[in-house]
Amino acid sequence: MNATDIKSPADIRNLGIDQLSQLATRLREILLEKLAAHGGHCGPNLGFVEPAIALHYVFDTPKDKIVFDVSHQTYVHKMLTGRIEAFADPAHYDDVTGFTNPAESEYDLFEIGHTSTSVSLATGLAKARDLTGGTENVVAVIGDGSLSGGEALEGLDYAAELGTNFIVVINDNQMSIAENHGGIYENLALLRSTNGAAECNIFKAMGFDYIYVPYGNDLESLIDAFRRVKGSTRPVVVHIDTMKGMGFAPAERDKEHFHFTGPFNISDGSSEAPQMQTYVDVFAAHMLKAMQQDRRIVTLTAGTPGAIGFGPAERARAGSQFVDVGIAEEQAVAMSAGLAKAGCSPVFGVCSTFLQRAYDQLSQDVSINRQPATFVTFYGGVYGMNDVTHLGFFDVPMISNIPGILFLEATCRGEYIAMLDWAIRQTDTPVVVRTPSGAIVEREGDFDVDYATAPYELVEAGSGPVAIIAAGDFLPLAQQAAEILRTNGVEAAVYNPRKVCCLDTATLDTLAARKLIITLEDNSIDGGFGQKVAAYMSGKGPEVRVLGLPKAFPDRYNRAQFMAENKLTPQQIANIAMQA
Amino acid sequence: MNATDIKSPADIRNLGIDQLSQLATRLREILLEKLAAHGGHCGPNLGFVEPAIALHYVFDTPKDKIVFDVSHQTYVHKMLTGRIEAFADPAHYDDVTGFTNPAESEYDLFEIGHTSTSVSLATGLAKARDLTGGTENVVAVIGDGSLSGGEALEGLDYAAELGTNFIVVINDNQMSIAENHGGIYENLALLRSTNGAAECNIFKAMGFDYIYVPYGNDLESLIDAFRRVKGSTRPVVVHIDTMKGMGFAPAERDKEHFHFTGPFNISDGSSEAPQMQTYVDVFAAHMLKAMQQDRRIVTLTAGTPGAIGFGPAERARAGSQFVDVGIAEEQAVAMSAGLAKAGCSPVFGVCSTFLQRAYDQLSQDVSINRQPATFVTFYGGVYGMNDVTHLGFFDVPMISNIPGILFLEATCRGEYIAMLDWAIRQTDTPVVVRTPSGAIVEREGDFDVDYATAPYELVEAGSGPVAIIAAGDFLPLAQQAAEILRTNGVEAAVYNPRKVCCLDTATLDTLAARKLIITLEDNSIDGGFGQKVAAYMSGKGPEVRVLGLPKAFPDRYNRAQFMAENKLTPQQIANIAMQA
Repeated sequence: MNATDIKSPADIRNLGIDQLSQLATRLREILLEKLAAHGGHCGPNLGFVEPAIALHYVFDTPKDKIVFDVSHQTYVHKMLTGRIEAFADPAHYDDVTGFTNPAESEYDLFEIGHTSTSVSLATGLAKARDLTGGTENVVAVIGDGSLSGGEALEGLDYAAELGTNFIVVINDNQMSIAENHGGIYENLALLRSTNGAAECNIFKAMGFDYIYVPYGNDLESLIDAFRRVKGSTRPVVVHIDTMKGMGFAPAERDKEHFHFTGPFNISDGSSEAPQMQTYVDVFAAHMLKAMQQDRRIVTLTAGTPGAIGFGPAERARAGSQFVDVGIAEEQAVAMSAGLAKAGCSPVFGVCSTFLQRAYDQLSQDVSINRQPATFVTFYGGVYGMNDVTHLGFFDVPMISNIPGILFLEATCRGEYIAMLDWAIRQTDTPVVVRTPSGAIVEREGDFDVDYATAPYELVEAGSGPVAIIAAGDFLPLAQQAAEILRTNGVEAAVYNPRKVCCLDTATLDTLAARKLIITLEDNSIDGGFGQKVAAYMSGKGPEVRVLGLPKAFPDRYNRAQFMAENKLTPQQIANIAMQA
Repeated sequence: MNATDIKSPADIRNLGIDQLSQLATRLREILLEKLAAHGGHCGPNLGFVEPAIALHYVFDTPKDKIVFDVSHQTYVHKMLTGRIEAFADPAHYDDVTGFTNPAESEYDLFEIGHTSTSVSLATGLAKARDLTGGTENVVAVIGDGSLSGGEALEGLDYAAELGTNFIVVINDNQMSIAENHGGIYENLALLRSTNGAAECNIFKAMGFDYIYVPYGNDLESLIDAFRRVKGSTRPVVVHIDTMKGMGFAPAERDKEHFHFTGPFNISDGSSEAPQMQTYVDVFAAHMLKAMQQDRRIVTLTAGTPGAIGFGPAERARAGSQFVDVGIAEEQAVAMSAGLAKAGCSPVFGVCSTFLQRAYDQLSQDVSINRQPATFVTFYGGVYGMNDVTHLGFFDVPMISNIPGILFLEATCRGEYIAMLDWAIRQTDTPVVVRTPSGAIVEREGDFDVDYATAPYELVEAGSGPVAIIAAGDFLPLAQQAAEILRTNGVEAAVYNPRKVCCLDTATLDTLAARKLIITLEDNSIDGGFGQKVAAYMSGKGPEVRVLGLPKAFPDRYNRAQFMAENKLTPQQIANIAMQA
C-alpha cells in the first residue's frame, strides 16, 4: 500500500511482514525528509519507526491504550493514526505538535512533554479498567533516559502491585538526551549482554515479568514479543534494544547532537553554524572559568547538559566538577543541598520548566536548611520554549514565594555574570538566577552590589507621573516604552528590580507621589512580583498596573502576537502610561 | 556507665558488648517513658535503638556523616549526641524537636521531615568529599517505607555512579506508616527470606554492593556489619531487618497505631478515646458513602491513610476503591490523572505539605490535560502541623497559580461536603478542596452552587466602609471581627470567597465605594489570594489590606502567639478596620 494512504492502524493490520518492512522504510524516508526540512526530535523518532508500527500492528488501538513517555518519539505513531499528511506534505508540517495531543487524535491519550510520567499515568488507566470491568491492554512506552526520573520509578514500583494486565515497553537506546547516568544503566547493559537472562534484573526486582528483545528495530522480533504479552494478566516489561537515529548515519553517529535539531542537510546531516552568541554560551564559558579558579564550584545538570551550554567539549574540560545526574531533578536539587552543606558551591543549571519537578526539594532540602546552592534557570518567560508542556511562565510564581530563596533576574550580560558570581559566593542563602531568554543585552550599570540588600536599580530617571519597574528580559520593553513617552512629552522613571521575590519598600515609598506604577514581568503575573507591589502600594497613592504573561497554558504561540495580546508592546505600555 | 552521663558518642566507644547491651535497654526505657508521657514517633524510634548505638559506636561521628531519612527515628541518636536530658528529664522534653536539627547539634546535618531525601542529600556530601580530598564515611539511613519515594530512587540510582565510599543503611521494618506498597517490597521480602542471597536484588541492580543483617536489633550483628563497610571504597547497601516498636508489646502488635501517638498508658499502650469529630472523619465518612454509591469513585493516599481518616476498618470497607500507592506523591497525582482520563473520579487525600512533592504532576499530567481529578488537602494553614518541615502555609501560593486548577476552601461542614461532591462530579476541571484544619463549623449557607462560577458568598451584610473577604478556616475570624466592629458602631460586610485561585470581579466591583477591603487567608500571603485582590482593586478606590500568614518557615510556633504576631486576632482585625 501507499504509505500516504494510511488512515488508521486498521489499514496496516492485514499486511504481511514484507509489506510492513517496506512501510517502515517508506515512513522513515518521509520522517527524515520532514526532519531535515523542519527540524524536530530526530534520533528518538528514527529509532522508533519499527516499534511504533509493531505496537499498532499487534495491539487493538485505540481500544488498547498506549501511553508514550515524554512523547517526542511519536512521529511515526502520528503517521499511523490519521496524520500522515502532516509529515508527507510540507504545507501541513505544522498541523501537528511535536508531542502526543488528544486534541489531534483519540490515539493520543495525554499531552506530555516532561519525561518519566507514562507509567504512572498508565497505572490510572489500568486501575480504572479493573474497577469497571474493561478488558483492554494498557501499555506504557518509556525510554531508558526517562527511567532515572523519580516518577517513573515510583510508577514502576506501584504498577507491579496492580497484579493485572500492564505492559511496559522499555525502549532502550542506550542514551538519554546525552549519555545515560545512574546505576540502573549498568543493569540494562548487563541485561543486554546476557540476552535478558541475568537474574539480577531491576524490573523483576520491582515485581514485573520480563521479556528481552535484542533486535528492537526488527519488526518480526517486536511483533512476536508484543503478541506474547498482549492479553497478559500480569505486569510485564518488554525490554527492546533499539538504535537512536536508526537509518540516518549522521544521527546514528552523533546521537547527542541529533536528539533534537533544527533543519539540516539531508545528504550529510550538516547544518548552519550556530548563530550569534546566547546567554547559554555566556553561562557555560563563565562557569568553566569559575570552576577552573575554584575546585569547590560544581555545575550540575539533570540530563540536559547541552541546554545549559555543556556539550561534550565543555564537559570534558569541567571534568569531575561537572555532574550530570540524569533526568532526575529532585536528585539534582537535593544533591546541591548536600554539596553546599559540605562547603562546595553547587550551580544547578536547569530549564525553567523542568525545575517544576523539584519544588519540595527547593523548599525543604535547600531553603529550610539555608543551603547556599545556586539554581540557574534557562528558557524562562515568553522568549523561552513555547510548547505548552515546556512553558517557562511559572518559575517566578512557583519559586519566588518560597521563603528564604532569593530570586534574581538578570537584565544584561554584565548583570548576569555579576549575579552568578554573587550567588556562588553566598554562604547561607540559596539563590535562583534567571537567565534572560532574549538576545544578549549589553549596558552599563552598577552590577557589583550585594543582591540581598540592593535597592531597585534606577535605569532611567524621569520625574513624570509614571514609573515602570521591569524585570529581566522585559527591561528593554520598559526602556522602549519610556522612549515613546518621552517623544510624547511624558517623563517616566524605569527601574530594574533585580530580584522578584521581595520588595524594595524604600524605593517604592519614594514613588508614592506618582500617579501610576507599571510593573512588567516575564512570567505568569498571578503570584508574581507585580501583585506584591500592588498590595504594598495599596492606599499609598499610585495606581499599580500589573503587566506580564497570563495565567494560561498557550501552545506554540506566536511571540509577537502573544505579546500584543497581553498589552506588552512598547507602544501599548506607553499608551497605558499616557492614560494615567 | 550511667546512660544519662553520655555527652557524646565518644563516651560509648570504649564499652564492651555487654555494656552496650545494658545501655540499649536503659535508653529504650527512657525513650518509652518519654513517649508515653509526651507522645511522638513511637515505633520508628523503639525499633532503632540498637542501630543508632551501633552507628555511633562504629563510625567516627561527627567526622563521619550520617544523614537520617525523614529523621523521625533519631531520638536515640539525639540521646547519644549530647541531648539525653531532653529525653530523661521531663522538664526538658521540649528542648529538642522531633527531627534532626543542625541548630541543636553538629551531629544533625539537615532539618528533614519529608521522606526519601537522605540518599540524594548524602550524594552531595560524598561528592564534596571526593572533590576536596576528604576521607570521611558518608552514611544515609533510610527506612523501607521511604524507598517508594521517587527522590530516594533517583538518589540510589545516581549514588552508584559516585563509585566511592557511600553507605546506605536500609532500615527494613516491613512497614511504611501503614503497610508497605509496591513491588520493591516483594524484593525486600525475597532478600529477607534468602538471608540476602537472592540474585534478584534491587540494590545490586542499581549498582550497589550489598550486605544483609538478619537481626537488625542485635548489636553484635550490626557492629560487625558496620565495621565491614566502614571505609568501603564503593557504594554499599547494608540491609538490616529491624522490628518497628521493638521492646514495647503494644507497639510491636499495632505498628500502624504506634507509628506516631499522643501520650499513652505505659502499662498497656491504651490512650484516651479520640476527642471530638474532625473534618478528617467527615471526609472519610463521606468518601465511604460516595464510593459505595458509585464504583468509579476512587480514594487515593500516598502512604498516609490514617491522616485522611482511612484506618484499617475504613480501608477494608472501601476495598479496591481505596488505593495506597505508598509514599509516592508523584505517582498518586499522575495515577489520578490516568484514572480521570479513563472515566473514574479519583480523590487524592493528602497532607498539604506533602502535595508539594507533586507540583509538576499537578501542572502537566493534571492541569494541561484538563483531567477532572480531585485533590483534598489536609492540615493546611495555621491550625495544621507546626513543625517547620510540615507547615501547610504554601499550598495556596504553590497550586492556586497553576492555570486551570480550581482551588476551593471550605468554611464549614456543609460547604465542605458540597465542595467534595461538586468536585467529584466535574468532567474536565481539576479541583483542589482544602479541608479546614480548625474545629468543625456548622452554619447555614448556599452551598449547592456551581463552584466554577459561583460569586463570593455574602455571609454577613454590612453597608459600612469595610468589607472583609475571609477564606476557609479564617471566616470565623472575620465574623468575630465584624461583631466587634458592630459593637463599635461600624458595619462590615463579610464574604466567603469560596475559591482562592481567581477573583469574583463582579462582586469586587460592587465594593468600589468602600474605604477598605481586608482579605484574610490562612496561608502565606505572598502569591496568595489577597495580593490578587489588591492588584485588581488598584486605582478603583478602596485600600486593600492583605492579612494572613507570613512568608516564613517558623518551627513549632504557638498558635495563639503566632496569630497575634501576624495581626490575626479578631480585635486586631477590627482595629485595622476602624482605622479606615
